[in-house]
Formats: sequence, C-alpha cells, structure tokens
Amino acid sequence: MTTIQTGITVEACIQACLDCYRHCQHTALTHCLEQGGKHTEPAHFRLMLDCAEVCRSTAALLLNESAFATELCALCAEICERCAQSCERLGDMQDCQHHCEYCAETCRQMAKAPPSPHHARRTGAAHPHAG
Amino acid sequence: MTTIQTGITVEACIQACLDCYRHCQHTALTHCLEQGGKHTEPAHFRLMLDCAEVCRSTAALLLNESAFATELCALCAEICERCAQSCERLGDMQDCQHHCEYCAETCRQMAKAPPSPHHARRTGAAHPHAG
Amino acid sequence: MTTIQTGITVEACIQACLDCYRHCQHTALTHCLEQGGKHTEPAHFRLMLDCAEVCRSTAALLLNESAFATELCALCAEICERCAQSCERLGDMQDCQHHCEYCAETCRQMAKAPPSPHHARRTGAAHPHAG
Amino acid sequence: MTTIQTGITVEACIQACLDCYRHCQHTALTHCLEQGGKHTEPAHFRLMLDCAEVCRSTAALLLNESAFATELCALCAEICERCAQSCERLGDMQDCQHHCEYCAETCRQMAKAPPSPHHARRTGAAHPHAG
Repeated sequence: MTTIQTGITVEACIQACLDCYRHCQHTALTHCLEQGGKHTEPAHFRLMLDCAEVCRSTAALLLNESAFATELCALCAEICERCAQSCERLGDMQDCQHHCEYCAETCRQMAKAPPSPHHARRTGAAHPHAG
Repeated sequence: MTTIQTGITVEACIQACLDCYRHCQHTALTHCLEQGGKHTEPAHFRLMLDCAEVCRSTAALLLNESAFATELCALCAEICERCAQSCERLGDMQDCQHHCEYCAETCRQMAKAPPSPHHARRTGAAHPHAG
Repeated sequence: MTTIQTGITVEACIQACLDCYRHCQHTALTHCLEQGGKHTEPAHFRLMLDCAEVCRSTAALLLNESAFATELCALCAEICERCAQSCERLGDMQDCQHHCEYCAETCRQMAKAPPSPHHARRTGAAHPHAG
Repeated sequence: MTTIQTGITVEACIQACLDCYRHCQHTALTHCLEQGGKHTEPAHFRLMLDCAEVCRSTAALLLNESAFATELCALCAEICERCAQSCERLGDMQDCQHHCEYCAETCRQMAKAPPSPHHARRTGAAHPHAG
C-alpha cells in the first residue's frame, strides 16, 4: 500500500476523519442531548458539531485528491484537538475523545507531508481498495 | 450487538453508506475524470455525485437517530441501485458497483424495518462502539 | 425566467432550501443552545438539525439537476413541516418556523412537478443567473 | 445591522459562500460536464468541486458561530481565488469566476477580523433576519 513519508496513508486519514465525524455527530445528537447540563453548553456542543462538519469536509477533500487537502487537515487537527480537550473535561466522553485525538494526530501528520505536484495522485492510488 | 428485525444493524447501514460515499466520490473525481469519454458523460457522472451526496446525508440522519432516516434510506437504495447499473454498463467500475449494490441492499432492508417509537434509540445504542 | 408547471422555479426551490438550512442551523446552534430547556430537548433539537441536513442535500440534488431531486423534495417537505410544528410549539421561533413552512410548501410543489426527461435541464437553465 | 471592523458582516460572508457554492456546484455539473474537453480536465473540475465543498463548509462554521470560522475563511479565500483563475483561463465561465472572486474577497476580509471572545456572538446576531 502506498504511504506518504510520515507513514500515514491518505486512506488511513480519510478513515480517521470519517470515524471522528461519526462519533462526534452521533454522541452530540444522542448522549449530549440526553444528558443536558454541561453537555449542551454552547461552547462544548458547538465544538462537537464544528468538529463533525470539518472532519466530513476534510474527508471529502482527501477523496477529491484536492491540492488543498493538507491545508484543511492542519485546521482539522486543531479543531479535533480542542474537541478532545472539551470531551476530557466532561469526563464521560472517552470514546469520542479517543477518536478526536487519533484524528488530530493523523491529520497533523498528513499536514506535514511534503508538498509535491504528484503527491496527491500517487498516495491517492490506494483509495479504491479501501474498506 | 443490537440488531433490527431484518438483521441489519443501524451501524452496518451507516458503514455501508459511508463506504459507498467514499467510493463514488473518489472514483468520480479520479478514475472517471482521468478516463473521460463515457465516464464523464453527464448522466453517469451526475449519478456518481448524486449517489455520494445522498449516501453522506443518509449516514447523517442515521447518526442523528432521525425519525426520517428510514425514509431517506429508501431513496438512497434507489439511487445506489441506479448508480450500480450505470457502473456496470461502463465495465471497469466493479469496485464502485459492488459498494453501490451492497449499500442499496442494506438501505432497502433498513427502510423495511418496522417503525417503532423506541426503534431508533435502541438500535442506535450500538454506534459508539463502531469502528 | 423558466418556470415549471406549478409556477415554482427550480431556482426558487434551491433558494428556499438554502434559506431554511441557514435558519435551522443557525437558530439551533445559537438561540436553542442558549435558551436550553425545551429548546434542547432531543426531539426538537434533532429535528432542527435533520431539517438543516436534508435542506442542504436537497439543494445539492437540485443544483446537480439530479433525476432524484423531486423525490428528495417530497421528503424534505415532510421534514420541514414537522420542524415548523415543533418551532410553533416552542413559541419564540417564528422566524425559523416561517422559513420551514415556506420551504415545505415550495418543495411540495416541486415534488408534484410532472416528470419529464428534459424537465430538469430546461428549468435548471435559470440557475446561473440566480442571486 | 451589526458589522465587523472590516465592514463585512458575518451574514454577508455566509451569503457569499452559499452563492459561490451554488454556482460552482451547478456550473460543474451542467455546463462543464456538457462542454467536456478542458472543462472536465481533472485539475479544473476538481477545483470546482473542492471550491463548492469548502464554501459550503465555511458557511456551516459561520452559521455555527464557530471559533474556527475565520481560519476556515482564510483557506476558503485561497481556494476560491484559485478556482476563479481556472475559470478565467477557460474563458466562458465569467459568472462562476465572478462569484469565486467575490467570495474570495469577502472571506479574506472576514479572516482578517480581529479575534475577540464576543465577536462571533455579536456579529452573529444579524443572521436570523437574513434573507
């Protein structure tokens, strides 16, 4: 399987983004809404949905083999990190926190990948065989 | 793991939708654009992107445990089936075709699940442990 | 400007969907989260975000001139109507309620438009000059 | 109406993003696919859809009054600018080019807005009355 210098495949980054999207979207709309209190305070709840939105869009740019995908990965890493911290403060959001932390780390590595005109195309070659 | 009467879990349906989204979006933006000819004829190419859009949105409603998720599953099944047929006619799109067929079948079964006020909540309980 | 038999242009329907998306998404993430109480009860809040998601996706299929756009319009009309009712019960959501009602009516008319192989293409001709 | 220091309201930026989304998505899926040739060359066509995706997501973060909205505006401005240049080279895409240029300029100004803890909330107050 094709990998980039950092050892992270584009495919693994897409997977991490979609997993993080799933967990943030689902946890916000079920666990957080049902718990209420600190779980629906605007700062936390918005972060959950911002994170879901940006993870979904980052996956889209990676799937498009966009020249801008790594820039969006850098921003996605920031948002995921902040969301993980917010989950940690609440204390009963370990599963969501874990997915945010993993996605942050994966996107951060993807963002560091050396820019190259042929980069996206080559690494992207692995996608069609993705799960 | 909680299942619905048809044997399909909500989680499996979300996975099928996101997998189909990935393959349609990626294949359209890489293989189809690079091949050109019949691959970029409006009827086929639009179907690929319609399918990607609706799969992504169906996954979102399932994650939201929306009361309307099964209705969207029924439409998603139709679009996936049509997209699979279009891929089959082109002949070199087996991987995408397979994901469309699987998603169509999964969404069709989900759409048949008996409506129940507690249905979404119970079956949804499996999500947080999803891959 | 090209219109369809019912008098609703595709362009007007796209506009109604995007306006409804804007109001549901923004009102949920600001007014509802800040008010709390009944505004963040799962049934109401999920409906707001389901409505935002489906309005956004319906606009996308209309923009794609998808053969499936009118089917999604029919479902969008249902969700918007239910969301308008939920807003009405809360009592201080008139602006959002109004946009949901208007979008429901517009999508309902679009869904009734007679299917025709050339329909989407012709009516779609108006889009590029849209605001 | 509340404005930010640069004179651009959050509402105007949301409108510019959604307008640019509409034009890129629609023009790509109709005009570009129907013309073929240079219009479906991967570099141009991907840029059109990347631009549509990021404009849509930037509008979402602005609607969410996300703390990360201005960072995404900066990236959105870059992509819109590049897409405008690609449209200009093709020569018959003036309408799409114009919307990309306007969105780039609007997002660039939004990205320069001074960060302030109360900024998003105050400027966001204008949204519910938006068209």
